[in-house]
Amino acid sequence: MPIQRFRKTDFRASDLIARKRDGLPLTAAELRWLIAGFVSGEVADYQMSAFAMATVLRGMTPAETLALTLAMRDSGKRVRVAKRGRPRLDKHSTGGVGDKVSLCLAPLIAACGGRVPMISGRGLGHTGGTLDKLEAIPGFRVSLPLRRFAHQVERIGVAFAGQTRDIAPADRSLYALRDVTATVDSVPLITASILSKKLATDLDALVMDIKVGRGAFMKSLAAAETLADSLIRVGRAAGLPVSVVFTAMDAPLGRAVGNALEAREAFEVLLGAGPEDLVECTLVLGAEMLRRGGLARTEAAARRLLLEALRSRAALSVMQAVVRAQGGDPRVVAEPDRLAHAPHRILVHAERAGFIRNIDALEVGHTCVALGAGRARAEDAIDPRVGVMIQRKPGDRVRKGEVIAEVHAADAAPGRRAARSIATAYEIGAASKPKPLVLGRRHG
Amino acid sequence: MPIQRFRKTDFRASDLIARKRDGLPLTAAELRWLIAGFVSGEVADYQMSAFAMATVLRGMTPAETLALTLAMRDSGKRVRVAKRGRPRLDKHSTGGVGDKVSLCLAPLIAACGGRVPMISGRGLGHTGGTLDKLEAIPGFRVSLPLRRFAHQVERIGVAFAGQTRDIAPADRSLYALRDVTATVDSVPLITASILSKKLATDLDALVMDIKVGRGAFMKSLAAAETLADSLIRVGRAAGLPVSVVFTAMDAPLGRAVGNALEAREAFEVLLGAGPEDLVECTLVLGAEMLRRGGLARTEAAARRLLLEALRSRAALSVMQAVVRAQGGDPRVVAEPDRLAHAPHRILVHAERAGFIRNIDALEVGHTCVALGAGRARAEDAIDPRVGVMIQRKPGDRVRKGEVIAEVHAADAAPGRRAARSIATAYEIGAASKPKPLVLGRRHG
Repeated sequence: MPIQRFRKTDFRASDLIARKRDGLPLTAAELRWLIAGFVSGEVADYQMSAFAMATVLRGMTPAETLALTLAMRDSGKRVRVAKRGRPRLDKHSTGGVGDKVSLCLAPLIAACGGRVPMISGRGLGHTGGTLDKLEAIPGFRVSLPLRRFAHQVERIGVAFAGQTRDIAPADRSLYALRDVTATVDSVPLITASILSKKLATDLDALVMDIKVGRGAFMKSLAAAETLADSLIRVGRAAGLPVSVVFTAMDAPLGRAVGNALEAREAFEVLLGAGPEDLVECTLVLGAEMLRRGGLARTEAAARRLLLEALRSRAALSVMQAVVRAQGGDPRVVAEPDRLAHAPHRILVHAERAGFIRNIDALEVGHTCVALGAGRARAEDAIDPRVGVMIQRKPGDRVRKGEVIAEVHAADAAPGRRAARSIATAYEIGAASKPKPLVLGRRHG
Repeated sequence: MPIQRFRKTDFRASDLIARKRDGLPLTAAELRWLIAGFVSGEVADYQMSAFAMATVLRGMTPAETLALTLAMRDSGKRVRVAKRGRPRLDKHSTGGVGDKVSLCLAPLIAACGGRVPMISGRGLGHTGGTLDKLEAIPGFRVSLPLRRFAHQVERIGVAFAGQTRDIAPADRSLYALRDVTATVDSVPLITASILSKKLATDLDALVMDIKVGRGAFMKSLAAAETLADSLIRVGRAAGLPVSVVFTAMDAPLGRAVGNALEAREAFEVLLGAGPEDLVECTLVLGAEMLRRGGLARTEAAARRLLLEALRSRAALSVMQAVVRAQGGDPRVVAEPDRLAHAPHRILVHAERAGFIRNIDALEVGHTCVALGAGRARAEDAIDPRVGVMIQRKPGDRVRKGEVIAEVHAADAAPGRRAARSIATAYEIGAASKPKPLVLGRRHG
């Protein structure tokens, strides 16, 4: 036996990495030590990225995934939303193109009697982020102190905030590392990243929108189902009921892609209009939240409640109160034309006649990032005005030369390049059966 | 297609990591870019460690291993030893306990007509390092400017030096990273690490001593053979003939473990004495070097040359010249008692009667590190005086209570703890057939 020994509660990062490398499970105490060490700096970035790569390739047991999730949750503070009172509900999407559902869904749920403490993210890769869309509202602040956040949830029923340094800082740091080390694609790491943040806010139920398709991180339903099982299992073990809805992300959701354009479209839904697929996605996810929160017994009853909250403009009022409370100009909600406009608009014409079979969401997403709607690097500034309006959607019949989309650009030259990219994103051909929006569901 | 594109010669580190993660091979240009970026800082430590872990788990093709090796060699300067003249020969060991062969072998080869430009390493884990053993000689300097190093090789036939910043800096940095991220154990990474340094000195042949057994990095002959094949294949493709000898590392080599103790034992070999296994290991490796260098046609002829260089003390004279040239006290070579002694000696007694079946080299190595002969961290200082003298070796018959080893310690208490560890390292039982030293050979 070696003479020098570590104390029983001490571990060596390289030993734990070696265990994961060799496909052996780590204990909860070991994972807790690793995450605490990573946050304190004792475990170096280069050790954590090696561990992440070993995890991508070797996986984790359900017990390990749970332990990692809880360790990451406990790396920061908890948002305490009082247990008594209306159910605390949240929705999380794995990210898509044109996915502005959170902006209409959160006030809708509040209008129907739920409380929604929503911690959101920024745009990532080719997908947009709720925070960026909210910041398209002049004056809107997404960094709220935890106490004020919780207070607003009590008062208005909704608060939107970014992941501050206080909430799951281990996830923040690990995510930044995974993004540049090709270690994003791992079910246990994705599970821990999503649920550590969601468990940091006290919730009664979480509804996950797992996007599936070319424009999503999950390219196949099988991969999405594996992630769903992991989220449901870890959620259950941690005391959080999780429902999953799988929705299609081959074409962008709705018509707007780009931050101000998407905020506008979300407000149009609250005004009783908006594209059919976006409204349907909002209703499906909202109905599941109301059901899981005990606010409706059946899906049909839940949909009636939601539609009534739209018709009565109760959800619109909630959103106005939220924007006012978070420092934004509340007039933009009922008058979305007040949002900033890009100076250049370039029309996109159909290159041939026929039926639109698909609009490549990945291509549209990359094009909008290139226009300035997203970030190539974390430190890049974004331009809230730019993006694309999809005028013709899958299933529509078009004539050659007909306008099918409109690019909103800060400058003419990149706008024209974007218009060419958008034209190639359209697949036009023979009529085909449109794909359903909802691909499946799973319950905890 | 995305609008923003990288220039054709630019890569993204995360894309290359992702390819390796997915088990796809990288091109030579990609590996060259990755290594150059790592040295320049454009590729971060945490990206390189993720790449290393992906390589551990996914492997590399022979073409990739060659490209990585050459990229690492070309990250630094070359040591130019004139092509004309005596053959340029080197030996490299994968590391063992009590392995002081380089200290006797290099002057022996020079005395037999070879030139030995030997770039060595420091102790690693439980194994010792040639540089640390040389530094046990008062005044000996292991950091030589490249030009002086090459000049000394011409003049004396041998120079010893550490891997300076000039030689394969990518290997230096990558090795430091691998050591703390559990990514040492990878045949392509080990191959590139060894051969990038060896190819940085112009050699006519390299003889590898791959240690196999409990005290070695390679625990099985099968693993050692895989590494040998990789070294031979990459060496051949890079123009360096490589021979491999597999030698046993279950018990320490020779009797001395610890830096001054090992230097003393190496000098005893040059004086015509020394333990039988150490002398045999030196002769086997030396004969292969002379044969590969064209200095002897058969192994028998080579051994005769080596034995004559010992008998005539020609090798001893070379070592004295080397020590003098590198700033050390040359008297220690012929009078090794001049080397520093530890103040405390603690005898180790046999715990039972019987035959010594093995002495656990791993345990002996760890014990010596704990005494201060090696480093727990790279920045630790080492004590050249401390270590263990093995008095009874495998195959010896011992009585209960008989002295079987002697611990040399700086302080009494750690010395006593070390003595207890050494006692447990001895396996004493029924007589058993002693294992051979040479387990096999392989030629390029």
